[in-house]
Amino acid sequence: MPANTSRFLAACNRQPVDATPIWLMRQAGRYMVEYRTLRQRYSILEMIKTPELACEVTMQPIRAFDLDAAIIFSDILPPLEGMGLKLDFVKGEGPVLGNPVRTAADIRALAVTPPEESLWFTLEAIKLVRKELDARSLPLIGFSGAPFTLASYAIEGGGSRNHVHAKGLMMGEPALWAELMGKLSEVVGRYLLAQARAGAQVLQLFDSWVGQLSPDDYRRLVLPYSQRAIAIARQAEVPIIHFGTDTAGMLHLIREAGGDVIGVDWRIDLADAWNLLGDGVAVQGNLDPVALFAPWPELRQRAQQVLDAARAAGRTGHIFNLGHGILPETPVDNVRRLVDFVHDYTRLS
Amino acid sequence: MPANTSRFLAACNRQPVDATPIWLMRQAGRYMVEYRTLRQRYSILEMIKTPELACEVTMQPIRAFDLDAAIIFSDILPPLEGMGLKLDFVKGEGPVLGNPVRTAADIRALAVTPPEESLWFTLEAIKLVRKELDARSLPLIGFSGAPFTLASYAIEGGGSRNHVHAKGLMMGEPALWAELMGKLSEVVGRYLLAQARAGAQVLQLFDSWVGQLSPDDYRRLVLPYSQRAIAIARQAEVPIIHFGTDTAGMLHLIREAGGDVIGVDWRIDLADAWNLLGDGVAVQGNLDPVALFAPWPELRQRAQQVLDAARAAGRTGHIFNLGHGILPETPVDNVRRLVDFVHDYTRLS
Repeated sequence: MPANTSRFLAACNRQPVDATPIWLMRQAGRYMVEYRTLRQRYSILEMIKTPELACEVTMQPIRAFDLDAAIIFSDILPPLEGMGLKLDFVKGEGPVLGNPVRTAADIRALAVTPPEESLWFTLEAIKLVRKELDARSLPLIGFSGAPFTLASYAIEGGGSRNHVHAKGLMMGEPALWAELMGKLSEVVGRYLLAQARAGAQVLQLFDSWVGQLSPDDYRRLVLPYSQRAIAIARQAEVPIIHFGTDTAGMLHLIREAGGDVIGVDWRIDLADAWNLLGDGVAVQGNLDPVALFAPWPELRQRAQQVLDAARAAGRTGHIFNLGHGILPETPVDNVRRLVDFVHDYTRLS
Repeated sequence: MPANTSRFLAACNRQPVDATPIWLMRQAGRYMVEYRTLRQRYSILEMIKTPELACEVTMQPIRAFDLDAAIIFSDILPPLEGMGLKLDFVKGEGPVLGNPVRTAADIRALAVTPPEESLWFTLEAIKLVRKELDARSLPLIGFSGAPFTLASYAIEGGGSRNHVHAKGLMMGEPALWAELMGKLSEVVGRYLLAQARAGAQVLQLFDSWVGQLSPDDYRRLVLPYSQRAIAIARQAEVPIIHFGTDTAGMLHLIREAGGDVIGVDWRIDLADAWNLLGDGVAVQGNLDPVALFAPWPELRQRAQQVLDAARAAGRTGHIFNLGHGILPETPVDNVRRLVDFVHDYTRLS
């Protein structure tokens, strides 16, 4: 395989690389004019559920930038649809689940359907993308929302600031919580596994909301279920990236839950994070997505800081990424410059 | 002074106490029927700007619960009004600033007016409250939003998820940022000092948004201004509490910025936080506000965990509090039980 394929996979496995690999969470997205053009004709769910469209959107940033990996175009929430939730994306509001899960009966009614039935479109899209990527010798990432993040969306019925309903069930109804999280961990694990079997060479678990928990709640009430999902996905024997935000106070627990690579946000110095995580794990991150709005010299200095921090940690296995998804209004020129700079700076120095 | 007065002030000064002191951020608020009754007749700003009403609302939780301190009823944002911003509280949206600060001219136009002119109502309210509290021998906390949090509100025009405009100015216009933050640190410092001179025995700096920054941005672009505000307030020689959320990755910097007491949220174990902060500083926190919605045995167990973690740190100077403000729908009975439990558990054990 050419250098750029081996680069991302090598870093996942903590092997030496010719230059630091880079990809960007939500790299297929609204900041690209190619994406916005398609979005005028199709809804987000239409794009996710039409393999040809999902393939096209996945490839857009690959054609535009020298990225080291593609990530299949989807969202963290489609696994909830297969369980019986009504998912929609509402302009200005984000994802909305029309029938939130609140009672024992609601949880009992949730289905654990095979991903080949409920999420066939993403598995098909993965096959299509792999054909295109193989010609470029680039690897593909599959992904899913993690059990806690899915539980929060399912219970709240959408995004939430304080997660009062989700934490209410978690703190107040331990048996129901265990039942819900048990189902979610099966769904997530099987979905990740199916994506690897369809052709994804790396898997990422997104626990976007996990930083809203205290470390002890995470350890007792969430970690076992993330661990279970990862154990199922492990059967595919591909590297697993485990990402959350606001995790500076519980990185040791995120690592305990599993993953070959731990994704960290910008709220902690990357060297500090890696030291807290310890040896034997790769790290992905951690530029503030807002830095992409800064003038190029300022952005370059910030990217360099991340790369220097990774080097200060003195280990192999850094994958450059943002600390969270790229924002919709991000200037495309800065994306291009950032991707090239990460390669150039680490190749030369 | 009776035990309960000395208890809170003693803990601020890391002296031994007869029982762990407790107060709750936003303890005067919507979860109380007494507050909601007044709110039917007055807007939030009317309540803040009428000293008699602010005094009444400040006293409501003091009459209802065995709290160890009162905090003057206001908001973190009124200092922005005196600078020329138009502040309003819009139902469902929270605070809105009608004329956000975006340009050099906007920043140049911001006034640094004496708090005795622009915030006289809160200083008057403090004097009224002190008369009532002296009869109960309870201390009063004055407070202000910190420079970064005020800057973000001023630039964004309200609350924000990604702080793109605020960080954009911070990253892209260093000279303007310095000018804005310089003015804010003067306004905040003088306002805190004036509150102490009016009778507040403790001051709290609220940096609610600071956890959205990377540690390096905080250190270079925010810390000097928080430090300056604290230095001005220091002239009053009263204890200063420095609080932020999402600070697990930069507690050492929050401490460096100053404060006799550091407030921490629930996203880090309290013993871990105190160890990161080091010796010579008191700690306030750190129960998840959502825990107050849990059944009492569950809430009690969580409160006990916080108290046990504080004891595990092996130091004097723990003030029990939530990790952020109490939520509007919080059950009042749980507040009463929590306050009593914190005293009983630490007094007996």
